[in-house]
Amino acid sequence: MRKDTGLAPMLQYENIAWFENGKVRILDRRIFPAKKEFVYCEDYHEVAKAIKDMVTQSAGPFTAAPMGMALAAFQCKNETEEKQREILNDAADVISSARPTTQKRMRFLVDECLKTADLALKEGKNVSEAIVNKTIELNDERYSAIDNIAKHLTQKFPNGGHIMTYCWAETIVGMMLKNCKEQNKDIKLYCCETRPYFQGARLTAFELQSAGVDVTLICDNMSATVMKQGKINAVFVGCDRVAANGDTANKIGTSVVAAVAKYYNVPVYICAPTSTIDLDTPTGAEINIEQRPEKEVTEMWYSERMAPADVKVFNPAFDVTDHELIAGIITENGIAYEPYTESLKEMVLQAGGRR
Amino acid sequence: MRKDTGLAPMLQYENIAWFENGKVRILDRRIFPAKKEFVYCEDYHEVAKAIKDMVTQSAGPFTAAPMGMALAAFQCKNETEEKQREILNDAADVISSARPTTQKRMRFLVDECLKTADLALKEGKNVSEAIVNKTIELNDERYSAIDNIAKHLTQKFPNGGHIMTYCWAETIVGMMLKNCKEQNKDIKLYCCETRPYFQGARLTAFELQSAGVDVTLICDNMSATVMKQGKINAVFVGCDRVAANGDTANKIGTSVVAAVAKYYNVPVYICAPTSTIDLDTPTGAEINIEQRPEKEVTEMWYSERMAPADVKVFNPAFDVTDHELIAGIITENGIAYEPYTESLKEMVLQAGGRR
Repeated sequence: MRKDTGLAPMLQYENIAWFENGKVRILDRRIFPAKKEFVYCEDYHEVAKAIKDMVTQSAGPFTAAPMGMALAAFQCKNETEEKQREILNDAADVISSARPTTQKRMRFLVDECLKTADLALKEGKNVSEAIVNKTIELNDERYSAIDNIAKHLTQKFPNGGHIMTYCWAETIVGMMLKNCKEQNKDIKLYCCETRPYFQGARLTAFELQSAGVDVTLICDNMSATVMKQGKINAVFVGCDRVAANGDTANKIGTSVVAAVAKYYNVPVYICAPTSTIDLDTPTGAEINIEQRPEKEVTEMWYSERMAPADVKVFNPAFDVTDHELIAGIITENGIAYEPYTESLKEMVLQAGGRR
Repeated sequence: MRKDTGLAPMLQYENIAWFENGKVRILDRRIFPAKKEFVYCEDYHEVAKAIKDMVTQSAGPFTAAPMGMALAAFQCKNETEEKQREILNDAADVISSARPTTQKRMRFLVDECLKTADLALKEGKNVSEAIVNKTIELNDERYSAIDNIAKHLTQKFPNGGHIMTYCWAETIVGMMLKNCKEQNKDIKLYCCETRPYFQGARLTAFELQSAGVDVTLICDNMSATVMKQGKINAVFVGCDRVAANGDTANKIGTSVVAAVAKYYNVPVYICAPTSTIDLDTPTGAEINIEQRPEKEVTEMWYSERMAPADVKVFNPAFDVTDHELIAGIITENGIAYEPYTESLKEMVLQAGGRR
């Protein structure tokens, strides 16, 4: 255990994805917490496939991807230096394209691994070990940023307030709890289940339950009822990518909650490390949204079918929330408000353009 | 088969709920269409329980309730006339309170059965047979009203338009298809799955598939994405009860779709036979919303659990859509528009105060 993440032990990143003994071990979030099983990858292509297959989600790929690079380095360690570089470059391409919506962050991470590998090769050091250390460093940096975000976020909560979460943003949830404790704030959470993968029902609810927090699970289509009853003081969500104008891509359904919150005058805060702000993408319209397999919608948790055979299904994995539905975008350096085109630029500048 | 309902054969009301040979047979919608099974009730209390347990939903209880009254009459047919009246009164109370959100309509139906029983007793006729005939008459009346609603509704659809449905309103969906055919309108449907019972994924999708209509299934949290893409020309839903000011109770999640539709400027039409308009209920705030068991949310279709043990759950079965989110309330006598306090009164008046 390195930095205190506030997360339940099973959700510490050592358990999320880890390279050890020639294998990357990834917590299978598709069945967690009902079952605690790991997917073991002995080839970097399998790491990319695991990300594609949703074995790990949310920020999980940000650990799995560089650990996959460490695996690639391990796989080719006996090759010539030239061949090693070639394989590592291929691994970087394959792994970083496994989750299109966060491709930019994924590319940044694998590029950092390539730089690390380059140096290790020049210095004759163990490349995969160097990449593992780099991964820890990158994670620690991210956790520090998120700790700051959580501090700003928590300041927005009234003591005794009711907060709604959507999907799972593992680190931010953990850090939010840690900061609530530090700021002496007692909060109650409503947690949307997040179809079709139930990340909210399984992961957020698990994390909050583990921490002994008062959490109530609802179906995604119950958000309006809870808000109409005046129960919710704020909604907060993580994000996968923020466009220059503040349009935000996050788990499918975020924009539904945001539109409902708008109608009921509940502020929606997006938690966004500056690494997720993409000034090169002018608006949400330019964000590539991954389409996912139909069976995720039609099968009951991969067991019994509930939809008619051959019914057409539309299953986007993410959606884009219009910036005008967003009360504030919280970064490690403070909260960006409208007009986002200005404030986001400022945030990235403060972060020294760091991704 | 009596009136052409446009419904798939399995969804004709003879299959929804029926009294025959001393039993009420109710199609188990909780597992349909994956399995075609019936729940058989040999006591009117079992009919009430079946309604409470969601064996039948949507308009199903409007057939099951009077059929339950026929069963009660059958059960007590050898008792004294006084005892028979006593038992029938009890059955009316028990059955009509099985679905609180539509209690008024349920009460109207059992009261009609009591009147029918009274007459049959006086004339020395078979009481349960008389009640079955009354049920058919009441259903035919309702179907005629809904046929008219569907006619008005279909006129709102552009040819080649995309329509979003929420939950299942069996008769209105069937009648809408029939009227589309009559009006030569080709439409495509997006069908929200409707958590936690998946009535949309199972029943609406089944009905539309059976009719060979172009239907796409989505999770409830994908409505915003589809609307944002400009794909939806109109949303239509059934309803359980309309308050005097136009606030409308319908399946949980309706108000979420309505708030999202408001944001994306998509009109929402409520299909409401005048029998569902309750002028004695001033606003939606006075509508009693049934709370349902937690396991409907936490268990995967009664098989595998996906939420953590002991997590708190909020599971309202219905919600109320604010009248200002509604573009029009379509009754058998035409479309009511804002101000609903006036227009709904007019609709009920035209229907002769008939429930």
